[in-house]
Amino acid sequence: MTLYLQLASHYRQAIHKGVLPPGARMPSVRGLMGLHQVSMSTALQACRWLEAKGLLEARARAGYFVRADKTWALPPVSEPALVALHDEARYVGVHQKVSSVLARAQSRGVRVNLAGAQAAPELYPLERLRQSSQRVLRQRGDCLVTPPPPGGEPGLRSALARQALEQQIQLSPEEILITHGCTEALTLALRAVTQPGDVVAVESPTYYGLLQILESLSLRALEIPTSPHTGLSLPALQEAAVLTPGLKAVAVVPHLQNPLGAVMPDAAKQALLAWCEAQDLALIEDDSYSALFDGPAPLRAIKSFDRSGRVILCSSLHKTLAPGMRLGWLSGGRWQQRLEMLKYSQSRPNESLPQLAVADYFNAGHGSRHLRGMRARLVLQREHMAEALARHLPAESRLSVPNGGFNLWLELPEGLSSMALFGAALDEGIRLAPGAMFSNSMRFDRFLRIGCGHPFDEAVRAAVQTLGRLVQSCR
Amino acid sequence: MTLYLQLASHYRQAIHKGVLPPGARMPSVRGLMGLHQVSMSTALQACRWLEAKGLLEARARAGYFVRADKTWALPPVSEPALVALHDEARYVGVHQKVSSVLARAQSRGVRVNLAGAQAAPELYPLERLRQSSQRVLRQRGDCLVTPPPPGGEPGLRSALARQALEQQIQLSPEEILITHGCTEALTLALRAVTQPGDVVAVESPTYYGLLQILESLSLRALEIPTSPHTGLSLPALQEAAVLTPGLKAVAVVPHLQNPLGAVMPDAAKQALLAWCEAQDLALIEDDSYSALFDGPAPLRAIKSFDRSGRVILCSSLHKTLAPGMRLGWLSGGRWQQRLEMLKYSQSRPNESLPQLAVADYFNAGHGSRHLRGMRARLVLQREHMAEALARHLPAESRLSVPNGGFNLWLELPEGLSSMALFGAALDEGIRLAPGAMFSNSMRFDRFLRIGCGHPFDEAVRAAVQTLGRLVQSCR
Ligand SMILES: Cc1ncc(COP(=O)(O)O)c(C=O)c1O
Ligand SMILES: Cc1ncc(COP(=O)(O)O)c(C=O)c1O
Repeated sequence: MTLYLQLASHYRQAIHKGVLPPGARMPSVRGLMGLHQVSMSTALQACRWLEAKGLLEARARAGYFVRADKTWALPPVSEPALVALHDEARYVGVHQKVSSVLARAQSRGVRVNLAGAQAAPELYPLERLRQSSQRVLRQRGDCLVTPPPPGGEPGLRSALARQALEQQIQLSPEEILITHGCTEALTLALRAVTQPGDVVAVESPTYYGLLQILESLSLRALEIPTSPHTGLSLPALQEAAVLTPGLKAVAVVPHLQNPLGAVMPDAAKQALLAWCEAQDLALIEDDSYSALFDGPAPLRAIKSFDRSGRVILCSSLHKTLAPGMRLGWLSGGRWQQRLEMLKYSQSRPNESLPQLAVADYFNAGHGSRHLRGMRARLVLQREHMAEALARHLPAESRLSVPNGGFNLWLELPEGLSSMALFGAALDEGIRLAPGAMFSNSMRFDRFLRIGCGHPFDEAVRAAVQTLGRLVQSCR
Repeated sequence: MTLYLQLASHYRQAIHKGVLPPGARMPSVRGLMGLHQVSMSTALQACRWLEAKGLLEARARAGYFVRADKTWALPPVSEPALVALHDEARYVGVHQKVSSVLARAQSRGVRVNLAGAQAAPELYPLERLRQSSQRVLRQRGDCLVTPPPPGGEPGLRSALARQALEQQIQLSPEEILITHGCTEALTLALRAVTQPGDVVAVESPTYYGLLQILESLSLRALEIPTSPHTGLSLPALQEAAVLTPGLKAVAVVPHLQNPLGAVMPDAAKQALLAWCEAQDLALIEDDSYSALFDGPAPLRAIKSFDRSGRVILCSSLHKTLAPGMRLGWLSGGRWQQRLEMLKYSQSRPNESLPQLAVADYFNAGHGSRHLRGMRARLVLQREHMAEALARHLPAESRLSVPNGGFNLWLELPEGLSSMALFGAALDEGIRLAPGAMFSNSMRFDRFLRIGCGHPFDEAVRAAVQTLGRLVQSCR
């Protein structure tokens, strides 16, 4: 039931992106079976779903074809101009903007949250995590009264090293440092490779938490145009770098970037790494989301191409397994020792209980089944949300529907301000994440990040309808 | 059984410090009962214990008197010259020294650890903490899969605010920010009030973790002479400050300072605060240990005298309740908002489970009974250790035995190097904490911090004997 949806979603996107233009022939059922290693029934179900969505039409004896009049789908977000769009490197001043948005949202009764980069609690394996925690308390309870081991619990580090192998990253457990979420990993990575005043190149738009870290460390951000489909533009970065003294690091989210959902092709990752190598820059890779990617094979981390220890890989279980346990980790290549020192001096090693519990959970083999189930539910939630947005928003709107994760990236018609919309929606009990939060500039004020972490129910549908009404009235 | 020992320890120190000189009359049993609000049997037991230790002698019908020939006690550590001893403010470079000591100790089989500023696991209330954790998992298990609340769990913040009242600190729960140990609290405090290159005045000697934080933040330390009895010297600080541009903050451990065990008198705390006020400096108060003080009344935090929000109080449950749970907190006065922002951007809020478990534990009323028991065991362990050191070390050694906590501060005879001793002791399977770790200088190379966190058993006694032999052979 879930595999066919992933397949269908893949082709839905190909159609929306124009890779399969109107009138084009869809691969045959047999072709799909071979290409994606799926059964005939899965291939058939996917085609029928696309047909039911009005994206394909069946022609007798000839197979499926893309329809010209696609129903209930917005066109994809436009590509940014790839060069000469960037600002100068600037000290970050997002904190006021971001925290006023967060504070306003928290001070009001929110009925429907369309803002969260987070799944609903029921998408996480509470029962099994609870059982693992209880087992650890019974068997290793003394961890409550013993200082935790430096670097992290060996059992968890081993489990994470085994998982990293799936992304073709070879790490020994000792090369993994457990942190308080990806947030602490990113803070440590930036502290390890920069001094205040230095410049860090980031995607534009990017995750506001990264901008807040840059701001709190008195670093300057160099925002680089980023494609909603293929991620950071290397030509744009190269052009900007020439004009920017003090550039020390590049920080990217190559997989299911927040907020765009972009996924960098492997060739782009390798090109970026080679360029960082040539320029002697640190490459900070934030891989928080790749486990939520709906592809036939796991994504390859940039770290997997790294031969010289130039990549600091930062990751987290916060989004994918347990938002309440705040477990992250990093592997810092040539900076590993410095990172260990900084972690020790900044907060000492993480407490043991959640680490031991998650190691127990992984060792019982529950990890990949949970992820498969979560991805399947998220496909559904994204598809429902994309369809509802297409139904209720003006046709000039545009939408990126990534191949995984929680977030859609919505481009509103000309003239609209998502900051204004944010206030109007709050009055209706709806929380939005305005695009302006994701940049040091106001460039993305016409965008919204739409969270699909919650099951699509009547309340969410009604909220999208209200959003549509507000957009119409704000024009 | 425990109260009399606290009382006896109090008088033992008065005798060692010369407050009660040889030949002086000890307060009568009735006098002790009135002065300390204890029963007659407690007062009597205390006197008999002191008599058994050879510190008092009973004279028929006249009461107890201090003996001239005190047995098995070293004289107290000498006071530092209070002015003109300080270095210039210097960038801290302790990390190599400290981490090589830690690494050498970890790489070797250590049989007896005389270095730890930590109690043995059996001194902490494992069973009750485990029960509280299990209760939380049953009743609030969803905390594993829900992002934790900003600032910390309300229940824990309320419990800590109630406890702070005992130190006469008035705080609302919202003024308490939960952190990963006191270490993260100190990092945030320093980040909030300094820029790289700024100067922070610290006690000399001081906790090496503080020096490591200063080093990692590129701050300069101004080491201020500090009395093993009354703490930081304000005249020395005032003199040094005149010569030091860029001074932004003073960081002190007013209660049971690490490594000295000094306790600042209330008047000294007030004078320091008033001076910081006049100089417009931030005052960072590290109160990690005060719950382990053996006094008739709780110690008053400097924060309790603060009317203008100038004190950033940093504290922790790591030493006093649960070394495995890494719970700390801070209350930052005028910098509270900035501290909240830095905490959020550095590591996001702490996970909920340990916070809820400790709140449950406190609310069940177990906190103060545990502390009473722990203090009583520590008195005993300190007394045994002090006696063993007096027995086995050369008479020219000197020793500070604080009124609480884990640590004794031992001054070795002239000509000895604790760094050299450290290596020799490691060869015998004994881990020491050389004085040189506690300063940016080598000024304290003739000192050792002796940890008394572990029950005094035959292995510890033998280790002290070996230490005595090594000291003799190193002279
Ligand atoms: C790209 C990215 N990195 C890091 C984080 C924060 O990670 P954590 O919650 O593990 O600290 C987020 C959360 O939204 C994110 O989107
Ligand atoms: C004075 C002092 N402050 C802070 C700490 C570290 O506190 P925590 O373990 O809560 O991070 C220590 C630990 O030795 C200490 O002695």
